[in-house]
Amino acid sequence: MEIKSLQSGLSLKRTVDGGTDAQREAVRKILQDVAAEGDRALIRYTEKFDQVALSSLKVTKEEIEESLERLPEGMIKIMEEAAGNIRSYHEKQKQNSWVDLAASGTMLGQKRTPLDSVGIYVPGGTAAYPSSVLMNAIPAHVAGVERIVMVSPPGKDGKLPASVLAAASIAGVTDIYKVGGAQAIGALAYGTETIAKVDKITGPGNIYVALAKREVYGDVDIDMIAGPSEIAVLADETADARYVAADLLSQAEHDARACSVLVTTSRELAEQVKAEVEMQLESLPRKEIAASAWEEFGGIYVAETMEEAVAAINELSPEHLEIQTKDAMNVTGAIKHAGAIFIGAYSSEPVGDYFAGPNHVLPTNGTARFSSPLNVDDFQKKTSLIMYSKEDMERNAAKIAAFARLEGLEAHARAVEARLKEESE
Amino acid sequence: MEIKSLQSGLSLKRTVDGGTDAQREAVRKILQDVAAEGDRALIRYTEKFDQVALSSLKVTKEEIEESLERLPEGMIKIMEEAAGNIRSYHEKQKQNSWVDLAASGTMLGQKRTPLDSVGIYVPGGTAAYPSSVLMNAIPAHVAGVERIVMVSPPGKDGKLPASVLAAASIAGVTDIYKVGGAQAIGALAYGTETIAKVDKITGPGNIYVALAKREVYGDVDIDMIAGPSEIAVLADETADARYVAADLLSQAEHDARACSVLVTTSRELAEQVKAEVEMQLESLPRKEIAASAWEEFGGIYVAETMEEAVAAINELSPEHLEIQTKDAMNVTGAIKHAGAIFIGAYSSEPVGDYFAGPNHVLPTNGTARFSSPLNVDDFQKKTSLIMYSKEDMERNAAKIAAFARLEGLEAHARAVEARLKEESE
Repeated sequence: MEIKSLQSGLSLKRTVDGGTDAQREAVRKILQDVAAEGDRALIRYTEKFDQVALSSLKVTKEEIEESLERLPEGMIKIMEEAAGNIRSYHEKQKQNSWVDLAASGTMLGQKRTPLDSVGIYVPGGTAAYPSSVLMNAIPAHVAGVERIVMVSPPGKDGKLPASVLAAASIAGVTDIYKVGGAQAIGALAYGTETIAKVDKITGPGNIYVALAKREVYGDVDIDMIAGPSEIAVLADETADARYVAADLLSQAEHDARACSVLVTTSRELAEQVKAEVEMQLESLPRKEIAASAWEEFGGIYVAETMEEAVAAINELSPEHLEIQTKDAMNVTGAIKHAGAIFIGAYSSEPVGDYFAGPNHVLPTNGTARFSSPLNVDDFQKKTSLIMYSKEDMERNAAKIAAFARLEGLEAHARAVEARLKEESE
Repeated sequence: MEIKSLQSGLSLKRTVDGGTDAQREAVRKILQDVAAEGDRALIRYTEKFDQVALSSLKVTKEEIEESLERLPEGMIKIMEEAAGNIRSYHEKQKQNSWVDLAASGTMLGQKRTPLDSVGIYVPGGTAAYPSSVLMNAIPAHVAGVERIVMVSPPGKDGKLPASVLAAASIAGVTDIYKVGGAQAIGALAYGTETIAKVDKITGPGNIYVALAKREVYGDVDIDMIAGPSEIAVLADETADARYVAADLLSQAEHDARACSVLVTTSRELAEQVKAEVEMQLESLPRKEIAASAWEEFGGIYVAETMEEAVAAINELSPEHLEIQTKDAMNVTGAIKHAGAIFIGAYSSEPVGDYFAGPNHVLPTNGTARFSSPLNVDDFQKKTSLIMYSKEDMERNAAKIAAFARLEGLEAHARAVEARLKEESE
């Protein structure tokens, strides 16, 4: 790792895997089969990809209860406390419907309604994260979604991990099915005999899942196309190099393509962090992944001024940003683009991954320029309300008709003018 | 038009044109060329598709001022009043950033930031609607977006319509370029020498524009993939058949694939509306389009009860819904899915298209189940804020570490545990 000057800008590699033509073709075929054959296609593809022959897709109450018993009680308590914090933060995001009543008798407003149903994708194997179940399901539950479906590929034993089932139960998931991959996305988007279609699909997955989500977008809503995890730490000479290094590594261990970046005004800190990262790496179980991510996608940049550093962060628009400087709250005001901002020495990024309350599903790959953390708004939609009064219609009909005629839409003009004529009976 | 019983459900045809393989291929080629060649590709495609050789893409101040002079003064005044109403409604949608300060010293919050830049697509020819410019640009302006770019294909005279330029000027558009089609979407998504890239693209277009938007989604945000316009009228025996018929036709005249539906508990009203539509159709300038839409995509359904009628409307999830019943506000509460609800006899749908204030960019083709009208939230994004206190870290570090280890993420656990150790200096 070579420490670079920020003068020549950040030179980071970031990409979202777009998939190959063959992968796209495979996904289209799977989606078509699910649309045409329903459950039969789900069972067949599960046998093919997950090497398990299921007699039933639905996870039973007994399986869920068993999973709660299999986990240590202390772990259940921690998940429940985390769920409580997540629920409490997301409750604060809830917005009311509103109306504006004018003296003229006209009422304008905006009604909020939860989606009827949501599907949450949970990856299988080592990427099956119970925290991710909490983060996807709880905002939907808080939003008032009645049907929250979870899908996840079964292990070779035909089961889902106990921790994932426990998290689903804590988070308010209503139905759980053992199916993964593009076939699960097809089931959620089109419906099968067992799995009724949903209105929106959220949650991360492999390239087949990502391509399938992109393909069904429009028929149903989707959350986002996520890329590898990212962290940027913005620090000055007051930061503790051990903390900074540990937090950089917490992202690097996720994925060999994860991006961990330090931008600092202190060359001394830069050198300390470089040394700390190398030292802390040594004893990490996921050392190989973290080291590869750090070498290929990481970076340490020294800025001349805090303004220059802030500009680089805004250009990067990172998923996670830590601000470890002496006036961290002031610096926060200058940040325009980031998924989540962790302020001060004790705001280690994993605090947000698991426990504090804000969502850990965040925009990656620079999409924080236009996207938000997963939130309650993602599970509600708005409807405009217009109750126009006779008085306002009489005052404005001629203007509205003139505007409609300017656009060549005569029937629009006549529809308002009809209101000015005497009632026919 | 045959009046049907609702007992056997609504049987309406609705589709969004997905494009042919050849169209997809053409769009991909255009996008690649724009990414590689920039302005040169824009000029070349404009010559090919719009039959005009431009020396400059940017609309000048003089062209805008000239357009304002060419329009009747009364028309400018009407547009300004409409813009004022739209601005006022959208101002009410604005949400504040918020924080929650706990006694333990932890601060959690949510910061709102406008997007830096937005691109608005405006179709050319007879589909160039100044009202659409107001509806797309004003929410962005209210949200605080600094750079609002408009693109639209030039006519054979190398100009944009005066009404569209006037609307852009009133709505706060900052840059206007004469370029349309997939090439314009490419310019907005990737940037060229003249047109800097934007963060989000909104606005309707033909199939090439729609396919291009779908293709660049992820690099930039997009609004939605819109289908043909729709109106459903929910009426009882108190409704005026003339009004209902006029409103059904105001949507039918948009597009031969527009969908106009009456659902009523009164067979008498059903018959009156059928007769009124036929009569009013006769003298419409866009009679052919409206008649074709009404015959092929329209419908009149008689329900046994209001509950049955409401259930059918929720199933349909229409873009526009008019409620013309004696207890219209009560019925409104039972509607779960609609883009905009027009309540009562004077709330003719065109009032919302032009003047009342709510947005006329609305979810079509049943997507009101999960989508909202274009609104201020579409032009802002959220960032989570987490400032964790030493006290909370000391209380919770062990729990967070345990959760991280359950997921096999040791570096996450160590990052929080590092905070419990003595400072190194």
